Amino acid sequence: MQTDLVAALDIGGTKIAGALVDGHGRILARAQRPTPAQEDGESVMRAVEEVLGELAASPLWTRACALGIGSAGPVDASAGTVSPVNVPGWRDFPLVERVRAVTGDLPVELIGDGVAITAAEHWQGAARGHDNALCMVVSTGVGGGLVLDGRLHPGPTGNAGHIGHISVDLDGDPCPCGARGCVERIASGPNIARRALDGGWRPGPDGDASAAAVAAAARAGDPVAVASFERAARALAAGIAATATLVEIDIAVVGGGVGKAGDVLFAPLRRALAEYATLSFVRGLTVVPARMGTDAGLVGAAAAALARRADPTAAGV
Amino acid sequence: MQTDLVAALDIGGTKIAGALVDGHGRILARAQRPTPAQEDGESVMRAVEEVLGELAASPLWTRACALGIGSAGPVDASAGTVSPVNVPGWRDFPLVERVRAVTGDLPVELIGDGVAITAAEHWQGAARGHDNALCMVVSTGVGGGLVLDGRLHPGPTGNAGHIGHISVDLDGDPCPCGARGCVERIASGPNIARRALDGGWRPGPDGDASAAAVAAAARAGDPVAVASFERAARALAAGIAATATLVEIDIAVVGGGVGKAGDVLFAPLRRALAEYATLSFVRGLTVVPARMGTDAGLVGAAAAALARRADPTAAGV
Repeated sequence: MQTDLVAALDIGGTKIAGALVDGHGRILARAQRPTPAQEDGESVMRAVEEVLGELAASPLWTRACALGIGSAGPVDASAGTVSPVNVPGWRDFPLVERVRAVTGDLPVELIGDGVAITAAEHWQGAARGHDNALCMVVSTGVGGGLVLDGRLHPGPTGNAGHIGHISVDLDGDPCPCGARGCVERIASGPNIARRALDGGWRPGPDGDASAAAVAAAARAGDPVAVASFERAARALAAGIAATATLVEIDIAVVGGGVGKAGDVLFAPLRRALAEYATLSFVRGLTVVPARMGTDAGLVGAAAAALARRADPTAAGV
Repeated sequence: MQTDLVAALDIGGTKIAGALVDGHGRILARAQRPTPAQEDGESVMRAVEEVLGELAASPLWTRACALGIGSAGPVDASAGTVSPVNVPGWRDFPLVERVRAVTGDLPVELIGDGVAITAAEHWQGAARGHDNALCMVVSTGVGGGLVLDGRLHPGPTGNAGHIGHISVDLDGDPCPCGARGCVERIASGPNIARRALDGGWRPGPDGDASAAAVAAAARAGDPVAVASFERAARALAAGIAATATLVEIDIAVVGGGVGKAGDVLFAPLRRALAEYATLSFVRGLTVVPARMGTDAGLVGAAAAALARRADPTAAGV
């Protein structure tokens, strides 16, 4: 029997996706359910079980040697539990134990979704070939993950790289997390849109008041829209520079919906990075857009499971 | 011939210290010269050679199996060069090559001084037994280093953990490094003293306007002195919380002259840490005073050299 595939789960507030992934990162089978995010924990778990059941019905399932799970955070990899902010029915939910009840002896690797995206970008995407990298998702929230010394660094609980909740403005606006001036509080899509609206920007006839609409306005030269992206870029730059100064990364990969804004984001981000990343050992830092698409979470969860299989002492891709 | 000792060098802007250290961190021989910091690079190197010469004259020298160097930064471990801010005669100075000319085949390990202090605290001090730790020196400047997954994390150039130059106030005061609102710009000893003086605090009859004098005034209840330490504590807390959120540390060790201020620093630091370290996986973070004394740099340089000897792929203690 061949055991050359890994099963992967990507658990978010909107959908629960599953796949069988080969050693090249190709998805050979997939299954998906909407996340019943506002229902009780057992209902959410049933959706996970349906996804796993559909994968297990594939003739390829017997070739799976491990299962990787990337979940919306916070997660606790050491306890095998998850508490996704957007899934209130799951608080310290014993996901690994419950999944094992379905999948039997398959080794299970649990990581946060930012860490999963990072594993994917390092394996197949923009961070490939870089031994020290930060990968970020800038959308409704701001998440991330780290590659250090050539290996994924999930940290003991699987949450490392959580750049959205470092404070870059210690006297700044309160963040829902309880702190002040967090990167996410300044640079997330909803905060980019809110700041533009506060500054007097108004959506067009379609009523679209999203960060994507603000990006379109910025491209058309609207100064309030430009300023809102510049502010977000400064916060991202301070956070990226802090990360580089703390752990010595040489590349930062920015994905997510806001990451798709292109030059409206990346031009001021690169300017601001030159201001905040000043020490000799961080000056060479580059920042690039993400390359992985919507399957990044699945591919990254697979990568983490494969890496754990290759080196049981540490996740690494 | 026994080869159970390591030679260590601790190179700072004031003194160049050397030692022979055993496998328990005990110093068996030592030598020291003042750093001729304002002289040309060759004069500084001569002082290093004198220290090494004195160590090599010891009958214990033949038992040395490696040499660890902790140097004021920035350093570049990959190139073997150092550019200490306070030693202008050394810019990209090829220290490792020059030292090898004296010590022959002895393997040499170069790290920044903050990384060296961290290696010492992890081996013998307050971070002992912690697999994920940040160790800091808060004095004239603010430096630091990281232990991740049980091993020292110097980073590719030996400068990782440089917490003094992460920005926690992106619109804050310009820092000599070129950025704004760096931890050092708010929390270093000279900045604590400057802020107290700006607020109207005045030194006593002895004229001592140092951070230690501000600490004494704070202990006596002077509100301006208290406020200056509280501001420093907030900046340190934001930086420590950022580090924990990025790489999952469970302890922060604070040493250096400002670290000796005791409760005047640690009480507001612990309060502020609870405000900034809010996510589930960082809430258990503790902050404690350093335990190593003035030999920390030497002991840490020795620890890094020993760790490299045990595992040539990575420094680790």
